[in-house]
Amino acid sequence: MKNVITISREFGSGGRTIGKQVADALGYAFYDKELIEAVAEKTGFSKDYVRERGEYSPSASAFSYSFMGRSRDGLSTDDYLFSVQRKVILELAEKGSCVIVGRCADYILRDRADVLNVFIHADKKVRAKRIVDVYGANKYKPEKRLDDKDKKRRVNYKYYTDRDWGDYHNYDLCLDSGTLGLEKCTELICDLAKST
Amino acid sequence: MKNVITISREFGSGGRTIGKQVADALGYAFYDKELIEAVAEKTGFSKDYVRERGEYSPSASAFSYSFMGRSRDGLSTDDYLFSVQRKVILELAEKGSCVIVGRCADYILRDRADVLNVFIHADKKVRAKRIVDVYGANKYKPEKRLDDKDKKRRVNYKYYTDRDWGDYHNYDLCLDSGTLGLEKCTELICDLAKST
Repeated sequence: MKNVITISREFGSGGRTIGKQVADALGYAFYDKELIEAVAEKTGFSKDYVRERGEYSPSASAFSYSFMGRSRDGLSTDDYLFSVQRKVILELAEKGSCVIVGRCADYILRDRADVLNVFIHADKKVRAKRIVDVYGANKYKPEKRLDDKDKKRRVNYKYYTDRDWGDYHNYDLCLDSGTLGLEKCTELICDLAKST
Repeated sequence: MKNVITISREFGSGGRTIGKQVADALGYAFYDKELIEAVAEKTGFSKDYVRERGEYSPSASAFSYSFMGRSRDGLSTDDYLFSVQRKVILELAEKGSCVIVGRCADYILRDRADVLNVFIHADKKVRAKRIVDVYGANKYKPEKRLDDKDKKRRVNYKYYTDRDWGDYHNYDLCLDSGTLGLEKCTELICDLAKST
């Protein structure tokens, strides 16, 4: 029995939707809005700031972190945000069964034995279609939006975990939601949460 | 319904055993010995040579392929072996439902829609224990044997496919057989073969 499920996902792969479905099916808490609110309250940052900067590097380079308004004691606002977010994730996992999407949760909870770590991905064409369907079109090409978002996630993850985002070593299972379908992914994760 | 299942695997992860179990459970052909025999017959190489060189680079560097006794028309013995192996894999997949382990089969069969591509991995400690249990100890440390074998698989795969071995993009699912267990991996793959 896995009490905590972390879902890392490529942008547009439907990982967040799968996470919500898994939480609903298993009767687990789903932490997204609530996590952001808790971090916003503890840090004093706006919810928008936490939503964006808690998972995405400000620009797509690890070096950018070095030039980011670091205070004299060496703690940048993003480092501070990460440390608070880390504490909130550890507390939430302690509180009871839950699904946490993104935010380096797989790394933060690596010392717990009751965690199932999942990575969701899909072909770029599938994801490009999906983000336009779900979030609507904007002035940028869907492919550009995907690359940009994933690059920022990758850099953020690398900076704070020193691991490679999407590297299979970090996950119990990686699923292609494009070929397998969102429902099947949900079903598999629920099965594994219950049986392993 | 997926008629062909390709299994790529880290050395010692039990991927071959899982493949055999999947084939038995689904009533699919399992190509390992038979594939090697067919390639040996067509090329005139020994079965041992085909077993080893059909999947492993002679040394752990892609450059090594460049210095490998290439004949005047540019085809090295390994290139020739790959081309025959490729034809045999395409023919076997055409013949009927089957499971094929390793040998770039995921890449070779990429144009077929009825293929489920799986990657099996596990923590190094788990694999080190497994190879000693299954293949016995030898003068090399188990960790060294793992690194060496995986490196040769990675280089061979990269050379012939121009893809990265273990890159999640290439697989419908990647499974950690150490945390999930071999039986569960078999069950999931059978489920997906039938339902997707």
